Amino acid sequence: MLAEKKQKSALCTLSEILKCSAGELFFTSCGSESINTAVRGFLSANPRAGKHIISTGTEHKATLETLRILEESGYEVTYLRVGKDGVPDLFELEAAVRSDTALITLTHVNNETGAILPVTRISDILKRKKSAARFHLDCVQSLGKLPVTLSRMGVDMASFSGHKIHAVKGIGLLYVKKGCRINPLIYGGGQQGGIRSGTESTFLSGAMALALSLAEKDRENALSRVTILKKELIDGLSDLHVTVLSPENALPYIVNLSFPSFEAETMLHALEEQDIFVSTVSACSSKQKKISYVLLAMGISRDLAKNAVRISFSRFSTEEEVRLMCQAVHKIYNKYTLKRG
Amino acid sequence: MLAEKKQKSALCTLSEILKCSAGELFFTSCGSESINTAVRGFLSANPRAGKHIISTGTEHKATLETLRILEESGYEVTYLRVGKDGVPDLFELEAAVRSDTALITLTHVNNETGAILPVTRISDILKRKKSAARFHLDCVQSLGKLPVTLSRMGVDMASFSGHKIHAVKGIGLLYVKKGCRINPLIYGGGQQGGIRSGTESTFLSGAMALALSLAEKDRENALSRVTILKKELIDGLSDLHVTVLSPENALPYIVNLSFPSFEAETMLHALEEQDIFVSTVSACSSKQKKISYVLLAMGISRDLAKNAVRISFSRFSTEEEVRLMCQAVHKIYNKYTLKRG
Repeated sequence: MLAEKKQKSALCTLSEILKCSAGELFFTSCGSESINTAVRGFLSANPRAGKHIISTGTEHKATLETLRILEESGYEVTYLRVGKDGVPDLFELEAAVRSDTALITLTHVNNETGAILPVTRISDILKRKKSAARFHLDCVQSLGKLPVTLSRMGVDMASFSGHKIHAVKGIGLLYVKKGCRINPLIYGGGQQGGIRSGTESTFLSGAMALALSLAEKDRENALSRVTILKKELIDGLSDLHVTVLSPENALPYIVNLSFPSFEAETMLHALEEQDIFVSTVSACSSKQKKISYVLLAMGISRDLAKNAVRISFSRFSTEEEVRLMCQAVHKIYNKYTLKRG
Repeated sequence: MLAEKKQKSALCTLSEILKCSAGELFFTSCGSESINTAVRGFLSANPRAGKHIISTGTEHKATLETLRILEESGYEVTYLRVGKDGVPDLFELEAAVRSDTALITLTHVNNETGAILPVTRISDILKRKKSAARFHLDCVQSLGKLPVTLSRMGVDMASFSGHKIHAVKGIGLLYVKKGCRINPLIYGGGQQGGIRSGTESTFLSGAMALALSLAEKDRENALSRVTILKKELIDGLSDLHVTVLSPENALPYIVNLSFPSFEAETMLHALEEQDIFVSTVSACSSKQKKISYVLLAMGISRDLAKNAVRISFSRFSTEEEVRLMCQAVHKIYNKYTLKRG
């Protein structure tokens, strides 16, 4: 069957890049579905694994809302404190692991700050403690930007999204390590080994595979380019005394900046007028117009957090765009300073 | 926001055709996700509605597998008997409704036989019995082929799939009547009123809206054309003494035929060799290579059911294709009869 061949070929491409077996990958409709399936699917398939979960307050809403539901149904969640470096304290993590810890769910690269999780140090802790807890990693932001080598990271499950690597919206991916049992979120015809029923879209899975192979080819060069762009952006705004809220060693694709005397919403709309689109909090939560819970959980003051704007680069971003962005911000400052003066 | 406008416009198109309000429609990734969300989402949001469900054995696997899981978690399901007309006995249905019946879930058009459910007669029974049970309808096969006027059908929830009306695979739709409360299947950023989190794909939702408006424009004419095609197909095979398993008044888009002395798999592969693609059971279950549970549940004998092939028309099917199909079947009969003779 042609469709079956296409599906296999997409899985093959993806598994080669992600260093896992094709049978450990399952297509979903988005990152949120992958996260929901991993977290709830694992716990429901393993009711005896324990009722304790470890996470942080800086996770994506797909994780936090899932954990909230699990807390309502009897699970206990330890939310590790996260420092200004965006990383949970590893001693605290080690101490939090209990005999009834079923799952640890964390994020590879934070979607608001770019903070990078030391993944293997965490999986090493689990190994050292001989913990039976499974480790789920939200890799939505790291895919195609950092090496994601599943076989070497010590994770049991991982979630991915297609559109973050320029595939069309509507496709996600879930990694479930061989031997890690999960229940499906969507029951039906038993497609994808019964883990995810529903007619497979070879158009979408092909888009995901193509997007990742293109991103992977350019990954290292793109990282160098974006590192320079980030520096140019920060340098270009340094006279305005912006505060960089992204940790110093963050993934440069995401830059979180706090603009003095400018509420984030004001900056966002002023930039929008100049056809520059940034966001305040995660786009997924942006309708709520709240101060970023991620920044607050990192211990950043409300004053800094309420002026925080998230600027995202892609591997297609250019120096010219950075120049225009800096120009636009200066124009906004001049306009508003004049108004005020 | 451009994306927001596109999403609204797609919902507007769909709600106008389906005769409901745009706020009652939610995009999913497929029909199976819609069904899972409706059935489990309603029951989990309404734990006091009762622990009894009414359905049939001829539902799609997305429903049957969901019901199996619910039975494991304490729900009781009454599977109504279905006649050779593919329709459950309405007296039996009326008798099955209890004070603790929370949900009735049935299919508008059966995906293997084309049998059409008398929807309003069923919703009338529920009204007459003053039942508080909610009514979910699987409309995957009827969408764009029969009128689906949600406001007049008396259903509380309905599930749809995009690719059955020629949209790209990867988009489904869920109708939830105002006032009917459901829990999401996928938690996260709270998109689509919190009913279905995950980044919305305006590409996919636009495809669904376009596909339905095109199908709707051609719906009545297409039904006339396909009715003729079905007749031509059956006439063209009449000398082979095939048995039509689809009920007489079935939707003509699906024709279920039992070929004398030919196991379904043999016929399927012989036709495949001539580039004609039919299926034995639902494509969603076709890997299992079993005798159709739908036909058996209708009381059709194993002997007839094991030779049953499902032929699907679309509004793009032509008389020429029917002629080629009849020719191909005759060729197969001649070849195998010669071999045997």
